[in-house]
Amino acid sequence: MSQEADKTREVLLEFSMTPLDKGASVSTYVARSLDIIDRSGLPYRLNPMGTVLEGTCSEVQAVVGDCFERMRQDCERISIGIKIDYRRGREGRLTGKIESAQAKVGRPLRTD
Amino acid sequence: MSQEADKTREVLLEFSMTPLDKGASVSTYVARSLDIIDRSGLPYRLNPMGTVLEGTCSEVQAVVGDCFERMRQDCERISIGIKIDYRRGREGRLTGKIESAQAKVGRPLRTD
Amino acid sequence: MSQEADKTREVLLEFSMTPLDKGASVSTYVARSLDIIDRSGLPYRLNPMGTVLEGTCSEVQAVVGDCFERMRQDCERISIGIKIDYRRGREGRLTGKIESAQAKVGRPLRTD
Amino acid sequence: MSQEADKTREVLLEFSMTPLDKGASVSTYVARSLDIIDRSGLPYRLNPMGTVLEGTCSEVQAVVGDCFERMRQDCERISIGIKIDYRRGREGRLTGKIESAQAKVGRPLRTD
Repeated sequence: MSQEADKTREVLLEFSMTPLDKGASVSTYVARSLDIIDRSGLPYRLNPMGTVLEGTCSEVQAVVGDCFERMRQDCERISIGIKIDYRRGREGRLTGKIESAQAKVGRPLRTD
Repeated sequence: MSQEADKTREVLLEFSMTPLDKGASVSTYVARSLDIIDRSGLPYRLNPMGTVLEGTCSEVQAVVGDCFERMRQDCERISIGIKIDYRRGREGRLTGKIESAQAKVGRPLRTD
Repeated sequence: MSQEADKTREVLLEFSMTPLDKGASVSTYVARSLDIIDRSGLPYRLNPMGTVLEGTCSEVQAVVGDCFERMRQDCERISIGIKIDYRRGREGRLTGKIESAQAKVGRPLRTD
Repeated sequence: MSQEADKTREVLLEFSMTPLDKGASVSTYVARSLDIIDRSGLPYRLNPMGTVLEGTCSEVQAVVGDCFERMRQDCERISIGIKIDYRRGREGRLTGKIESAQAKVGRPLRTD
């Protein structure tokens, strides 16, 4: 990756990471990931189905990697879903996409 | 589906629906879906990568179906991603999952 | 949905459906879904991460719904991932997309 | 990551990578990714909705990264979906999961 390209926070990445070998209650494991995300310093938003990170390619990859390394220490089977929206040169989309959507709809929408 | 089962709002469904034949800016089309979602009356939360609905199976399916019917009217190719978390008999998870995660982490997390 | 629109098998739908409360080995539950899919008569392809169905909107929805109804009978928490590729008026894409990709690459690719 | 852990091909990763700014026909861009995947030497299977790779964490990440670097050279907006199934110490699941499913169902299923 060119170094210049990797200075722009042009990546939105949503992910969820779930152990499959721990039964129906997985909040202990999810909380450890959230702690890593929150301490990373990257802009993020938690939602009921995952967490959205904003950063450069390297930044968001590093956070997902750290969560995985932690979880694999005591989980034997892990399912991960990742969705990436890359838009060249655009930053601030963690809040900007929602603002733009609300402006288009013409009224406030539920976001929290 | 048993009618009893379908009275409980035990489904969280996150989805995003994107036309592929309209270029890089798709906010006009996304806004129409958000209008449908907001008018549906179902509890929901918009995030930068999708929308999370809470409802019975039938309720959440109906909203996704309505958004699709609207978008296919003038879009020839559409990509849809859906993620469902079903938990028998549990309601209120649209807010409950986040509260429980914050309690486990022991400090507030960014959610809006 | 217009009845005419729903006669064309213009939807490709990939899905995976996993119980979260049954431990790391879920093949018994997955096999029941595969049995439903195979008996449905719809064109499909199984891959190591999910199953791709081809059909009308109603047809693919019905198969996913049947799998869910079966799984919820004895699973308390279920995670479902669905990805849809809709292309107006195009049929035969279950095999056509791969053939077209191989033609573009100019050599055979691993598909089974 | 411990070096030992990263010698085992215990990761199945399915992904699809689509430009959003190129109209409804994206096969030219998809073919370039498939060429990279096929030349990588990693075990993979192409299906109508994505490609499944089998490898170590580092191996599968590298292939996805190469495809992204190539696509971002001339695409301004890119959507990526990734699904990972990690199972500690298990190799050969690219073919093994399907064989096991067929054995459970008790008859051959469509896989190609």
